[in-house]
Amino acid sequence: MAEVESAGDFRSVVLLAGGVGGARIAEGFARALPEGALTVIANVGDDEEFYGLRVCPDIDTLLYTLSDRINRRQGWGVADDTVKALDVLRDLGAPAWMKLGDADFGLHIWRSWRLAEGDSLSEITVEAAKRFDTRTNIVPATDDRLRTKLNTDEGWMDFQPWFVGKRCGPKVSELRYEGADAARPSAQAMAAIGAAELIVFAPSNPLLSIEPMLAVAGLRDAVAQTPAPCVGVSPLIGGKAVKGPLARLMQDLGLEATSRAVAGRYAGLLDGFVVDAGDTEDAEALRKAGLSVASMDILMGGPEGAERLAREVLEFAAGLVPSRERRSA
Amino acid sequence: MAEVESAGDFRSVVLLAGGVGGARIAEGFARALPEGALTVIANVGDDEEFYGLRVCPDIDTLLYTLSDRINRRQGWGVADDTVKALDVLRDLGAPAWMKLGDADFGLHIWRSWRLAEGDSLSEITVEAAKRFDTRTNIVPATDDRLRTKLNTDEGWMDFQPWFVGKRCGPKVSELRYEGADAARPSAQAMAAIGAAELIVFAPSNPLLSIEPMLAVAGLRDAVAQTPAPCVGVSPLIGGKAVKGPLARLMQDLGLEATSRAVAGRYAGLLDGFVVDAGDTEDAEALRKAGLSVASMDILMGGPEGAERLAREVLEFAAGLVPSRERRSA
Repeated sequence: MAEVESAGDFRSVVLLAGGVGGARIAEGFARALPEGALTVIANVGDDEEFYGLRVCPDIDTLLYTLSDRINRRQGWGVADDTVKALDVLRDLGAPAWMKLGDADFGLHIWRSWRLAEGDSLSEITVEAAKRFDTRTNIVPATDDRLRTKLNTDEGWMDFQPWFVGKRCGPKVSELRYEGADAARPSAQAMAAIGAAELIVFAPSNPLLSIEPMLAVAGLRDAVAQTPAPCVGVSPLIGGKAVKGPLARLMQDLGLEATSRAVAGRYAGLLDGFVVDAGDTEDAEALRKAGLSVASMDILMGGPEGAERLAREVLEFAAGLVPSRERRSA
Repeated sequence: MAEVESAGDFRSVVLLAGGVGGARIAEGFARALPEGALTVIANVGDDEEFYGLRVCPDIDTLLYTLSDRINRRQGWGVADDTVKALDVLRDLGAPAWMKLGDADFGLHIWRSWRLAEGDSLSEITVEAAKRFDTRTNIVPATDDRLRTKLNTDEGWMDFQPWFVGKRCGPKVSELRYEGADAARPSAQAMAAIGAAELIVFAPSNPLLSIEPMLAVAGLRDAVAQTPAPCVGVSPLIGGKAVKGPLARLMQDLGLEATSRAVAGRYAGLLDGFVVDAGDTEDAEALRKAGLSVASMDILMGGPEGAERLAREVLEFAAGLVPSRERRSA
């Protein structure tokens, strides 16, 4: 592996990412890095079957964002998409609370068809990324079944019925990553980690996006053992998530909704952590605990802001020496 | 069974129908008859799987026409439909010659989902007709697999690749209704025939739409044995089909492209036959052969024209005495 001494030297970066926030910083890295240098390992804990079709919301958001098909206003779905198919499904009496657009259905139909033909989710996702001209590798954390389940005041729920169907309403007391024990990391994810000069944990929801992936033991071990530096980016600014239910979910689960609590979720895996410039207390606490911390404006806004953040993260990472603490964890 | 003495008396009419022409006269009967009096038995020989989804072109055209969703200009597909899903499938490298619209995909997704859940095509079709508010019963001829195959100068082909993919280009030398020997008629089709006061053979392609259904022995026997009169309507005017490849297909197969040749395909099943007012030679030849023949304007045009034709066919049928010839056939 070549020496990486400055941000411009990175030739293979792995990003562990969930949906919207993960896709935004992925776009930033894709702009900041040479073509093909970025591999995004995507969470599949949010996956769900609708009408027998496999929907992979995090992979889809990555594909749409990195191919510039994304509906930028809402952060997910395809721009200018219509819902004619969903309207017909509703007319036919099918549940229609998941907002699947027509272009969106094209991808789900294709994926489900290929899965039924025996192709793996990895093969399918890699091909979709190529066909969509994302110039970025996108691979699922695992080809095996892995599903985030939430124990709520309305009982155990699947992720999408809680997240979309109930708009995160039911209070969560417990999370379970069903299938994680038996799941093997995808070969593509393992190869990317093996070749990585840098691993970045995207500013995604740690509980719902990153930890389902780390619950796959083989993947977690590979991240823990890689000689490449591992850097996390906080998804919280002043204790609030830019998007999504993270702050409330952490509180529901008895966790502090702070950047340092997020970093704590990744204990033993990080060489460095990026917090928002305003979160000085978090930075100080994490430094005291022995972690390298960079403070910067982590609010991305559009693609330019994401690229700016990606470049600053790369700069920070280039200066890191992988910590001995992490190696011995 | 009540006595039927005039067109207004029919309370249960069965129409054997294919796609466009069948759906047009079905709409006419639906307008002419009391709500629920019409049951359309639909051809499934044209069915095909696309991307793992079951597409039933004849059933779909019937559903769309009878629910007034149809694209009336082209006679098939949903009005004002878009092709966003198909565009994505094409982007992903999938074959995309079958023009499946977005609203259309909604129906195919729902049907395929229900089939995978173990429901029969009959149950699914009956429910779709109800949900779409067609006020007409639509049932497949069979729930079993039945596929029209064509031996052409390019070898054996499935129906849709020949009809849509190759625009009926390859010359046909032989037809086969694959699966017909083992197929059982649907219970709903048998019940409808059993209760029918009149059976009508729609002006559909006999070779591609009606005969695949009659190739199911149980269905053919039920039609042959019903005490209700059976009336066919010619799909040809002056030896030309209003729509579709019938005339050329008959010629390719060494048949005369005439109304009397079409009636000949249904020998032993008909009490009466309807030909276009201009086809006097056909009318004369069929009468000489002992069949009751009605001559009328069989060009339907829009729904009003279809209703006019349906009323005239009902009037003709009400005056028919089921022929002994047919009973002994």
